[in-house]
Amino acid sequence: MPTTLVGATVEGKPNFITIAHVGIMDLGSVSLGMAKAHYTNAGIKENGTFSVNLPSADMVKETDYCGLASGKRVDKAQLFHIFYGNLKTAPMVAECPINMECKLIKVVDFPKHDVFIGEIVTTYAEDAVLTDGAVDYGKVRPLLFTMVDQSYWMLGKRFAKAWSIGKDLNGHKST
Amino acid sequence: MPTTLVGATVEGKPNFITIAHVGIMDLGSVSLGMAKAHYTNAGIKENGTFSVNLPSADMVKETDYCGLASGKRVDKAQLFHIFYGNLKTAPMVAECPINMECKLIKVVDFPKHDVFIGEIVTTYAEDAVLTDGAVDYGKVRPLLFTMVDQSYWMLGKRFAKAWSIGKDLNGHKST
Repeated sequence: MPTTLVGATVEGKPNFITIAHVGIMDLGSVSLGMAKAHYTNAGIKENGTFSVNLPSADMVKETDYCGLASGKRVDKAQLFHIFYGNLKTAPMVAECPINMECKLIKVVDFPKHDVFIGEIVTTYAEDAVLTDGAVDYGKVRPLLFTMVDQSYWMLGKRFAKAWSIGKDLNGHKST
Repeated sequence: MPTTLVGATVEGKPNFITIAHVGIMDLGSVSLGMAKAHYTNAGIKENGTFSVNLPSADMVKETDYCGLASGKRVDKAQLFHIFYGNLKTAPMVAECPINMECKLIKVVDFPKHDVFIGEIVTTYAEDAVLTDGAVDYGKVRPLLFTMVDQSYWMLGKRFAKAWSIGKDLNGHKST
């Protein structure tokens, strides 16, 4: 899964937490699976806003740190340059090449997790990660995560076109 | 996002559809964001079960084909060897190194999408993708997807440990 830095205002201050258990809902909304013990959850519920920031692989130390240190004890916002968009309570990380500010539209309740579903209000992308005006994930260099071995991975190479390469199987026979 | 083949029984027959707009909810459940126009949605609702199969990058043609051809017209199950687990209506793809059979626990309704949330009942993994008894994504070689350029990507290299590499920033100062 892509690792993200989730921003929220908690107790009146910007805070960030590392979340890789994300999801895409429909084309304009995302989910975050966040253990209820986290400090950030109350801020998302209080303000009804959050941000999803995509760090590049170069930001692995800062990103991992935001999953280690709790905002209860540490001011993680000091690690980054922060900006705000249309929603005034969704702090975003300027160092991340992609930022999405989101309005909370639903909380799905699990025994130990809140799943926050947010509508993306605005997406910001650095010019440096665009190719012909569109986001190029080869330039974003997202930080991928696997839980089983608690590891971070690079994105590899782009090698095929979707809704295209499978056309070779039109009129397929049983294998 | 990781590309998956979602299996369901539709009109009494096994069917598969390509879905990359997935999510992780809590540690034992996943989500699928599926446009309402898809043939498969009715089968998931009827039976309350589905499977999530992770194809390796080698299966890119078969995987892409399952996103191109509708089960209304084509018997996609013929492409694969199929097996069933504890849930009798969640067909799984033997060629995929990882399979999860899921019980539907919630449908989140969006204007044009059903988001199906399923509890993972059983996970199956091929011996060939294990290292010391645990799934090794370097061996799974998942098929990653980006919507913006409708492309498939390889997973790159594992390069850092989570909940670890960020410890270097303990006692960080403002940047």
